[in-house]
Amino acid sequence: MQRLSEREWQAYTEKYKNRARMLISCPDRPGIVAAISHFLFQQGANIVQSDQYTTDPESGRFFMRIEFELSNLEERCEVIKAAFSPIAKNFEMEYSLVQASKRKKVAIFVSKEDHCLLELLWRWNSGELYADISVVISNHPDMRETVESFGIPYHCIPVTKENKPEAEIAQIAAAEGADLIVLARYMQILSPRFLEDYAMRIINIHHSFLPAFVGAKPYEQAYRRGVKLIGATAHYVTEELDAGPIIEQDVQRVTHQEDVETLKQLGRQVERTVLARAVGWHLEDRVLVYGNKTIVFP
Amino acid sequence: MQRLSEREWQAYTEKYKNRARMLISCPDRPGIVAAISHFLFQQGANIVQSDQYTTDPESGRFFMRIEFELSNLEERCEVIKAAFSPIAKNFEMEYSLVQASKRKKVAIFVSKEDHCLLELLWRWNSGELYADISVVISNHPDMRETVESFGIPYHCIPVTKENKPEAEIAQIAAAEGADLIVLARYMQILSPRFLEDYAMRIINIHHSFLPAFVGAKPYEQAYRRGVKLIGATAHYVTEELDAGPIIEQDVQRVTHQEDVETLKQLGRQVERTVLARAVGWHLEDRVLVYGNKTIVFP
Amino acid sequence: MQRLSEREWQAYTEKYKNRARMLISCPDRPGIVAAISHFLFQQGANIVQSDQYTTDPESGRFFMRIEFELSNLEERCEVIKAAFSPIAKNFEMEYSLVQASKRKKVAIFVSKEDHCLLELLWRWNSGELYADISVVISNHPDMRETVESFGIPYHCIPVTKENKPEAEIAQIAAAEGADLIVLARYMQILSPRFLEDYAMRIINIHHSFLPAFVGAKPYEQAYRRGVKLIGATAHYVTEELDAGPIIEQDVQRVTHQEDVETLKQLGRQVERTVLARAVGWHLEDRVLVYGNKTIVFP
Amino acid sequence: MQRLSEREWQAYTEKYKNRARMLISCPDRPGIVAAISHFLFQQGANIVQSDQYTTDPESGRFFMRIEFELSNLEERCEVIKAAFSPIAKNFEMEYSLVQASKRKKVAIFVSKEDHCLLELLWRWNSGELYADISVVISNHPDMRETVESFGIPYHCIPVTKENKPEAEIAQIAAAEGADLIVLARYMQILSPRFLEDYAMRIINIHHSFLPAFVGAKPYEQAYRRGVKLIGATAHYVTEELDAGPIIEQDVQRVTHQEDVETLKQLGRQVERTVLARAVGWHLEDRVLVYGNKTIVFP
Repeated sequence: MQRLSEREWQAYTEKYKNRARMLISCPDRPGIVAAISHFLFQQGANIVQSDQYTTDPESGRFFMRIEFELSNLEERCEVIKAAFSPIAKNFEMEYSLVQASKRKKVAIFVSKEDHCLLELLWRWNSGELYADISVVISNHPDMRETVESFGIPYHCIPVTKENKPEAEIAQIAAAEGADLIVLARYMQILSPRFLEDYAMRIINIHHSFLPAFVGAKPYEQAYRRGVKLIGATAHYVTEELDAGPIIEQDVQRVTHQEDVETLKQLGRQVERTVLARAVGWHLEDRVLVYGNKTIVFP
Repeated sequence: MQRLSEREWQAYTEKYKNRARMLISCPDRPGIVAAISHFLFQQGANIVQSDQYTTDPESGRFFMRIEFELSNLEERCEVIKAAFSPIAKNFEMEYSLVQASKRKKVAIFVSKEDHCLLELLWRWNSGELYADISVVISNHPDMRETVESFGIPYHCIPVTKENKPEAEIAQIAAAEGADLIVLARYMQILSPRFLEDYAMRIINIHHSFLPAFVGAKPYEQAYRRGVKLIGATAHYVTEELDAGPIIEQDVQRVTHQEDVETLKQLGRQVERTVLARAVGWHLEDRVLVYGNKTIVFP
Repeated sequence: MQRLSEREWQAYTEKYKNRARMLISCPDRPGIVAAISHFLFQQGANIVQSDQYTTDPESGRFFMRIEFELSNLEERCEVIKAAFSPIAKNFEMEYSLVQASKRKKVAIFVSKEDHCLLELLWRWNSGELYADISVVISNHPDMRETVESFGIPYHCIPVTKENKPEAEIAQIAAAEGADLIVLARYMQILSPRFLEDYAMRIINIHHSFLPAFVGAKPYEQAYRRGVKLIGATAHYVTEELDAGPIIEQDVQRVTHQEDVETLKQLGRQVERTVLARAVGWHLEDRVLVYGNKTIVFP
Repeated sequence: MQRLSEREWQAYTEKYKNRARMLISCPDRPGIVAAISHFLFQQGANIVQSDQYTTDPESGRFFMRIEFELSNLEERCEVIKAAFSPIAKNFEMEYSLVQASKRKKVAIFVSKEDHCLLELLWRWNSGELYADISVVISNHPDMRETVESFGIPYHCIPVTKENKPEAEIAQIAAAEGADLIVLARYMQILSPRFLEDYAMRIINIHHSFLPAFVGAKPYEQAYRRGVKLIGATAHYVTEELDAGPIIEQDVQRVTHQEDVETLKQLGRQVERTVLARAVGWHLEDRVLVYGNKTIVFP
């Protein structure tokens, strides 16, 4: 696979070296935006994008994503966080400050279907996903050569009923340090402990328009029900199967002509698009979770 | 309401006076198409459209919709049916022969929401739905003036827990002779007897992408689940609620910004489009039912 | 036509009586958001939505739409404008402050096709378009009854080659005081003076996916070219025909089967949807124009 | 790249070894379908799919695609063609008989952008494109490793102003025997002679919704015009640039936020999907050309 050169990554990193993103959530009340924007102005920042959402104008929760340019960001990042902390305290904010140039570490889990994995690898390799894909973990050996051709380590960790706990320990070790785990059609259930460690940092692609066709064999279910659209859903993984916060969904028109095999084939295109979009938005810190829902800032 | 003139209907009727449609279903085996097309050729017919579908190439069921021109159709219709009957018997066909110029009688049921009804009336009045809308039946008086302005009789039959059987008798009387019943957001459940009398001739619009959000208050359900697309489903009504054969579905993208009211507003556009398409296809004899699914020929 | 009661309008007006919208554009530089939000905080406003866009992070132009709640808005509106003026001057802002509860006056122009007009009237009558449709102006008498059934005055002003200037004077008189003019398939060209008077306040629906099929008979052009999607475009009208800033576009899939008549029929659905969306966004002050393009805030 | 095993190809070939497709076009008149289906029945064929289209019911041209199963197809293919020839002559048919199990030879031309090529290779490798991709020809060396990892020969033939005729001779030699040439973002113009040799057998992907933005830099054009949807068009290549028969088009919604780079990025997804669909349909003999338009049978 022809690889994106290190020089191209560098160009991006250089371009965004002074770009920061703040994600904020707090109880809504007057003065929040004024306080934040005044603070940023004092620091010499130039706001380049800003989005906000209040769950309920009366007594709701306020969410904000703000992107700004600030010279010497790298050196000043910690100082700024410290300076911001009284404001955060005053408004009871949960917040994070992220440098746009820092690549998030991503571990991808995959079983035997390669379409979602390949979509992510392509987009990554073409510079569309700004991340550091640190490892691909699979319960099958099949995709080693492909993955390694992108210069990414491949860990084959077979999972059986008997070795599940040990396998997971090996997986956790292999994913060490990951900021995000992507289940790119990884057909195994993760343990509650795993889910807790990576709460709202595991994205799964479900091959149906949730909440229709929860559980196994959604294309077979869709075929039997005779739906006229099939879909896919990218969501954060929570303990309840297929019930976590939805990040993105899309559908594809089908007709009576399609058999289950063709539904699967058409569905693969939707799955990989939907997953790639969701991962991209997460990497750009566009997704905030509240309750069991997401805010996705454009 | 400015009405489509009788002259415009006449023009259509005149144009299609020799246009027939045959709908056929039978066990698949070689020779079916040859027998049908040979028969039509002998009768002097010219096939203008033909579509077929076999559920399974090995041992399935064969479905066909064939549209043809035949001079003096009106007079020869019964003779042709008689002549076709040995072929039908030989291949164990279920079939129907329909004159395209015969307007189907349609009764529309509606409650308080007017968007689906108005869509149907407008498409009908602009010549897009070739039908005879013979009556609108409602459990509320609200839409009388609107409906009557289209020259269509309006029957207000209030339905309460107590009068349900009597109300249904009145409804059946009002719908007398209908070829198709459309539930254009009619929020009441029909009795099994009613459903049986009009089997696969009652179309309902459900305000969700079925089978997601079966039952009451689908937009509230969709809001709580945080889906990124909302949808609507037109289906034939069967005894099991929201589970009949799906004719058409469509969706509309939404974001976290939409509250339940906005979902309903956006959903209304999808509902009326989906219902109008399904009704149009039914009127043009494009929909065949097998098992719990539909074939919709283009 | 069953009419939205005055009580329902009142409820909306009451609900939004303290809701204001500010639209701002100025050269980009640090401190704009801080200045605006600080000002609003001092006035006691609570920001409920805020969107911004900078054409170019380096040296571009800054655009903002900000929606806020402020008690006693009606009385304080002028005082606030005055208080804001030093800030506006300092940042070289163009801006406007709009009360959300004030209905914009809309004049609709129409020729013989009724689908776009009816879509607007329905959405208006169902409370989806918050406006005061003050008049419908047509060069044909056909839609008088329909329009008047909504309680809206109808002016039939025939336009011929000979009477064009006089007709336009009559049109201008009839549209007197309109905040927005909507050309709902009005197939006549307006004079440069008219366009100037209503710059960026005339919305037209063009029945193609512009800039494909500029000019007359776009469906015929689309048919001849054999496109697989047909579309519609809502845009502000400028002197150059079909070349004004695009507000909204959408498309509909078609196949080789469609003849020109069917393309027109399918196209009508896209046209009315696209126009209604564009008008709705304009009424909610979501559309800003820069150069020959629009910003549409969500 | 993990390769589809020869055994999987064999399974497909075996499954469809008795599957044939006939493509027919002739002047419309009664009896065509009867003659064809009677012939096929006599030969012992079982029709599994059949689609037809008449350009004009009055005096038009008839087009048909018919797919059937016939035992011992391989041996009987020539005999059947011979037996069919009197019918073909009688109805003045142009026709072809194709064995579904015969893989078409495909040569792909590419420049520096790899997304369309990769999409085709991935779909081919996953069994979705049933073809024999015999060669990839490029004017750049960049994608050699990737292409060869799929087991496909890569010919790098640089094209300059000076060497154009010689380069084309080398290209023609490299593509020798191709049934289909795919220009997967190959940014060079082919000579009239080349086009003639491969008439209606060269598919190009144009990165706009044609006929909008003909010619160079369509995304720059789209950006300047401020469109709200960007698109891509797959078409057969003819002498007039970007004007050949359209096979498939699709679009993607964009907003004012997108700069030219982002438009290109979003556009890439549409381009590769549209091209892959068009190539798939061509390989399955679903596309017929008449005049400057295509019929695409479902």
